[in-house]
Amino acid sequence: MWQPEGMADSFAARFAAVRARFGPLVWGLDPSGDLLNAWGFGDTAAGLDRFADIVLEAAAGTVGLVKPQSAFYERHGWRGIRTLQRLLASARGAGLLTILDVKRGDVGSTNDAYAEAFLGAGAPLEADAVTVHPYLGLAAMGAFVSRASSAGACLLVVTRSSNPEGRIVQEARVMPGTGDGPGTGDGPGTGDGPGTGVGHSVEEALLAEIGTLNVALAPGQIGPVGAVVAPAHLDRAHLEPALDLPAAHALFLAPGVGAQGATSADVARTFAACPGRVMPSASRLLLSAGPDPGALRDAAAALAAKFRAALPATGLDG
Amino acid sequence: MWQPEGMADSFAARFAAVRARFGPLVWGLDPSGDLLNAWGFGDTAAGLDRFADIVLEAAAGTVGLVKPQSAFYERHGWRGIRTLQRLLASARGAGLLTILDVKRGDVGSTNDAYAEAFLGAGAPLEADAVTVHPYLGLAAMGAFVSRASSAGACLLVVTRSSNPEGRIVQEARVMPGTGDGPGTGDGPGTGDGPGTGVGHSVEEALLAEIGTLNVALAPGQIGPVGAVVAPAHLDRAHLEPALDLPAAHALFLAPGVGAQGATSADVARTFAACPGRVMPSASRLLLSAGPDPGALRDAAAALAAKFRAALPATGLDG
Repeated sequence: MWQPEGMADSFAARFAAVRARFGPLVWGLDPSGDLLNAWGFGDTAAGLDRFADIVLEAAAGTVGLVKPQSAFYERHGWRGIRTLQRLLASARGAGLLTILDVKRGDVGSTNDAYAEAFLGAGAPLEADAVTVHPYLGLAAMGAFVSRASSAGACLLVVTRSSNPEGRIVQEARVMPGTGDGPGTGDGPGTGDGPGTGVGHSVEEALLAEIGTLNVALAPGQIGPVGAVVAPAHLDRAHLEPALDLPAAHALFLAPGVGAQGATSADVARTFAACPGRVMPSASRLLLSAGPDPGALRDAAAALAAKFRAALPATGLDG
Repeated sequence: MWQPEGMADSFAARFAAVRARFGPLVWGLDPSGDLLNAWGFGDTAAGLDRFADIVLEAAAGTVGLVKPQSAFYERHGWRGIRTLQRLLASARGAGLLTILDVKRGDVGSTNDAYAEAFLGAGAPLEADAVTVHPYLGLAAMGAFVSRASSAGACLLVVTRSSNPEGRIVQEARVMPGTGDGPGTGDGPGTGDGPGTGVGHSVEEALLAEIGTLNVALAPGQIGPVGAVVAPAHLDRAHLEPALDLPAAHALFLAPGVGAQGATSADVARTFAACPGRVMPSASRLLLSAGPDPGALRDAAAALAAKFRAALPATGLDG
């Protein structure tokens, strides 16, 4: 693959490499208070530290990607963030790709500060990918996009979430002309993409905007802007219209596997058009096997094999 | 005012008290790297600590409310969060109302964890109010709402942001029936409120949902669920249709004053129907007077007087 000098390997290339070895499974590291108590560690910052040690030991060499959910670290205050910082650095050091699930999103100047927190060399909480929410507009995320692109990282835009309460916003219809107004001038434009015509939903418009960004940033490849798209449960599929996923030229984080009800078959069906681009994520389902590292490793390896079989694509274009 | 036993004073009552003394101004504490450098402190965790000391000294006894923007603390990693934690505790100890601007929002179980981080006694980053984003649905925020209600805190839902890039989502039209689907059962319902009929925008539907929650939680009063609503600039007012603000029975955080372009006249015009319920926020405009505490105090006092004059209501119903 051609690569401009000084550019890091793209996240998509690094995902393809870990996928070939471990399959596409993302291990969600969500240390709820209930879990820390169930593991006998206590719902404290010290218990959180023990959790981090064990999941690092179990994940390295078993899966390709881990995804800490920030909320479960933030609820322990600065000590929890110190653990998260250590967890991210150790995981990256062990060759794991890290997806930091923070769902940040704000006006442009604030997004710049968040991007400095999470993306690129020197970021204190540096991750290989970070989730963002688009309520204040993907077009306000110029620094997020450019840092992800130059650092070989990935920006995962929450597009279709795994909970039904989000449908009211995600399914709403975009008005013609929104996004055409005077912008700040420092972000990629919206409003002239194919997704912003009347009748398109917010989630469709976002995918179109992501596709436009990726075509510009990584022509002919999978770009640095990905999307969070929940797998449709079979009994709800009629409520959640199919999305044109391949046109986004993107990787997809598929949350909600396991405890939230989605199966590997749901994932395979939802992403049938681009099975090589999906990163299915499970947390509670795996963590319930702990705290024994061997049992955790076995559970993760079994689920990883299941997803490797369900998503048989051999390349990102498969 | 009647108050159930064991309930804390409501945020609205506490806001009315500080407003009577200092006016409605919220001092935004946004220590960007540029600002820390301009103040001669250096863009480091130690510089951030010096910033916190000075703004605490200047704000106490000058304004009624402060609003740290989390991004500018997060970019210093766990040390930055340690400073934020100290800043929040010290500000509350000095009688300031604290609005923590984090714009969190996720699925229900993750929102529960965020609520534990920020709201109620024992939360490590306890604030009097916290901002959230609704991309995954306000109906998924049951724990946020109930904690805010019982702790006398306030949940501020980003509804209309101060940046034009957000219009594409915020102005989209809600589809009939969304939110009527099978919910998690642990959040307040949407879909049967007045705002969810076809033709309503996302921001209108949110305000209606907020009104429904507040009427249920605090009948006849201003409820614990507020909204972030940007003041309309005069030259953009035609692009941003008026909202039915009084029907939300809510307090409003009005961002974007000063450096982002909105004036006190813009705020007064946008909130003319309920001037006693608006909390205008300015950050860069005030911080540019630093780092001298006396100069900061003078700048904040002058702007506070300006907003007190522009928003002359004497009570929350004015």
